[in-house]
Amino acid sequence: MNVKAVFNTLGKIAVVEGALLLLPLCVSLIYSEFFSAAIFAVTVALAAALGGILMLLTQRRSHVIYAKEGFTIVAGVWILISLIGALPFRLSGCISSYVDAFFETVSGFTTTGASILTNIESMPKGMLFWRSFTHFIGGMGFLVFVMAIIPNVTDRSIHILKAEIPGPAVGKLVPKIRDTAKILYLIYVAITVLEAVMLVCGGMPVFDSIVHSFGTAGTGGFGIKSDSIASYSPYCQWVIGVFMMLFGINFNIYYLILMRKFKDVIKSSELWGYISIMLVSTVIVTVNNIEIYKRLITSARYSFFQVSSVMTTTGFATDNFDTWGGLPKAILLILMFIGACAGSTGGGLKVSRVIMLFKIVSREINRLLHPRSVNTIHFEGKKVDENTIGGVSHYFAIYVICFIAAFLLISFEPFGIETNFSATAACFNNIGPGFGHVGPALNYSAYHGFSKIVLAFAMLLGRLEIFPIIIAFSPSVWKNN
Amino acid sequence: MNVKAVFNTLGKIAVVEGALLLLPLCVSLIYSEFFSAAIFAVTVALAAALGGILMLLTQRRSHVIYAKEGFTIVAGVWILISLIGALPFRLSGCISSYVDAFFETVSGFTTTGASILTNIESMPKGMLFWRSFTHFIGGMGFLVFVMAIIPNVTDRSIHILKAEIPGPAVGKLVPKIRDTAKILYLIYVAITVLEAVMLVCGGMPVFDSIVHSFGTAGTGGFGIKSDSIASYSPYCQWVIGVFMMLFGINFNIYYLILMRKFKDVIKSSELWGYISIMLVSTVIVTVNNIEIYKRLITSARYSFFQVSSVMTTTGFATDNFDTWGGLPKAILLILMFIGACAGSTGGGLKVSRVIMLFKIVSREINRLLHPRSVNTIHFEGKKVDENTIGGVSHYFAIYVICFIAAFLLISFEPFGIETNFSATAACFNNIGPGFGHVGPALNYSAYHGFSKIVLAFAMLLGRLEIFPIIIAFSPSVWKNN
Repeated sequence: MNVKAVFNTLGKIAVVEGALLLLPLCVSLIYSEFFSAAIFAVTVALAAALGGILMLLTQRRSHVIYAKEGFTIVAGVWILISLIGALPFRLSGCISSYVDAFFETVSGFTTTGASILTNIESMPKGMLFWRSFTHFIGGMGFLVFVMAIIPNVTDRSIHILKAEIPGPAVGKLVPKIRDTAKILYLIYVAITVLEAVMLVCGGMPVFDSIVHSFGTAGTGGFGIKSDSIASYSPYCQWVIGVFMMLFGINFNIYYLILMRKFKDVIKSSELWGYISIMLVSTVIVTVNNIEIYKRLITSARYSFFQVSSVMTTTGFATDNFDTWGGLPKAILLILMFIGACAGSTGGGLKVSRVIMLFKIVSREINRLLHPRSVNTIHFEGKKVDENTIGGVSHYFAIYVICFIAAFLLISFEPFGIETNFSATAACFNNIGPGFGHVGPALNYSAYHGFSKIVLAFAMLLGRLEIFPIIIAFSPSVWKNN
Repeated sequence: MNVKAVFNTLGKIAVVEGALLLLPLCVSLIYSEFFSAAIFAVTVALAAALGGILMLLTQRRSHVIYAKEGFTIVAGVWILISLIGALPFRLSGCISSYVDAFFETVSGFTTTGASILTNIESMPKGMLFWRSFTHFIGGMGFLVFVMAIIPNVTDRSIHILKAEIPGPAVGKLVPKIRDTAKILYLIYVAITVLEAVMLVCGGMPVFDSIVHSFGTAGTGGFGIKSDSIASYSPYCQWVIGVFMMLFGINFNIYYLILMRKFKDVIKSSELWGYISIMLVSTVIVTVNNIEIYKRLITSARYSFFQVSSVMTTTGFATDNFDTWGGLPKAILLILMFIGACAGSTGGGLKVSRVIMLFKIVSREINRLLHPRSVNTIHFEGKKVDENTIGGVSHYFAIYVICFIAAFLLISFEPFGIETNFSATAACFNNIGPGFGHVGPALNYSAYHGFSKIVLAFAMLLGRLEIFPIIIAFSPSVWKNN
């Protein structure tokens, strides 16, 4: 392990985060929240100092980064930015315990959107801005962002890109990593701006439009009101619903559209799978909800919004879906696990993995019937090699094992299986609200500090797709210097 | 598909079941239940007639059985014996609908133990005997039983043995299939008799001892009282608890003990895994339950009994574990999925699969760190080939997919996620009682007919390890005659 390289990168990241914290500082000044501004200024200073010290101590000679350094850097960065990002909430007194502030910040960066705040409306605007901005940064990936802006990124950094972008296989869009990162971020910013503009046009205040666009873009789900999106106009709800869906699509698709390769877009089976699942779920949920919302169009609005919100793992809500019927709730629970497309900002298992799992299963049945036949699996028009197939099945296994471990660790909490199970699911898949005591009308404040830390790590496991966190915490990785 | 061979076998099986039904007929006569006896006589006649007609219509010329015929026969046999076995319950009026009777019988043969009966104590003794006897037959496998008794079993029948005995890999104990089946059944009967004798010695009435031994042997769980085992003496509860554990062990272990190969027994990692999981779970649950049961030994008795009952997927209860704390309930929920050892009468994923999954996962992590290294997985002292490894991962995937499908299909029921989820888990893993509305103090009678059929098929999927049922219902299998 190249320990110096790891800590040197962490130092740089602390400085970058310090720079990013200048943005909420400005917002605080705009709204004349001078106390908040001072808190942000202190945090900026602390982050810069920490970063400077780390960089001084670890002036690295060797730039060599292998897979294990890549994974460890990603895990370390995500924990570090959460530790620093939690400071403003704690120092300002907006959140009274550092564990809670850490939970909230991890929830932000991992785009989970699970909150412990009981009175959101009383928060200063600067804090609310920072809270939602973490979604925006975390959505596309902190390190992808850093790669897009800093020079001299070597192609070795593909290890970092691979570890941070969700999905079973990450390809470079263009030969140079840095250009890939730039293109991804440009598309990301463009769609976010488009959403904010459409929301402002629909009458939503500018501040609200910006933070909700951040929450949508990162598929995060932090709002600025206790009832999430419920009090905004139907137009705004439709806009956010559609944009959540858009941010759940693999960003390669947008690149293909920019390149006018429409044929490749149409041939994407993940895109078709994603749209089909969302459509079918919306129809079933809409039909089941008609007796609650009376009119078809109203039921469709509430149902589509929630399906889109849960499947993209955003977590916004326009109504308390915990009060819906058994079938809609079961569908939402399953969508929580399926998640969005690979290479999007959404969480969950990812549609491409689910499609692959089905293909693997049908091949397995075929194999039992015809033991000697050779069966290859095709996906997105290409033959999938056996390593990738094994990888998908094995990832699924490790996913379930980690999920169960997290569920067990919080199960001493007295909320019952439905709440604890859905809380684990909502955090692990980076959604936010679950059912029961963590339903959309309630939040995570009732959990003990220990459970909050477990759930925060569940969010990190989910966002970084498990391996970076496990590898960074494996003693064997740190042994052989 | 050799359709004739399939239906010919089904015909034979109907006749064998008719013969087995003579046993409850005798029990009815012993207890002077003449109406029940008449019902059993009618069922025997019907079964014999159906079997005779099927055999006449399909006098087969070709004995060739390939994998697909093997799977289809197994699926067909299990459905057929349940359809026939349900007749006495319905014809006698003990159960008022045939769907309910089918549910109860599938639950019996698959050794699930989920019941729709609300007043067990009012049932005639003959019916209670038949109900528990289905556990005994289903535990080791109906076809294994048939192979043990009928002559001219070809070695092709390994396909049937493989499809019916649970676990990732079935080996023949001895070169001849028929001898393997015989040895398995002899061990099975011997341990069952031992249990019945020990229960009688402890003061349990003879009839009760026999039916509870059947329920333990098949890891089924049907009792003859509404409170299951709660009203029997602590001695009897300890005996049943220990025997449940014994029946959850791979029967190869007993064969090895008979052959005095003690070294091989000690080296079995599945056995160690099974005992360790059970021990650790018992300790945690015991500690958590002390505040309920006051004394350590009482808490240990209730906790060990339930851990043993749930992990072996038996489903007997000595108390309403639905009222226990969050952690004990979460542990029980997870034990439901782990299940017992491969090659035992228990259900669930099987301990060997779980151990293999952990090995696969740790290899996967190793692979990410050292992409070029060659890693082999060893299990029970042998190198595991890549096909088996893939098989375990893929089985896990198909298991989860089927589980979710069943859960979705019953989720329109108004009992909430905890009940529906645990009902699916309890049926799919052949346990019986779940939590909430299907907890040990309640039963499945409140479910609709449709859900009961779904859950019955979930039991069959769990007992036959999915593939036979899916293959038997694949149109492509039936196409190419």
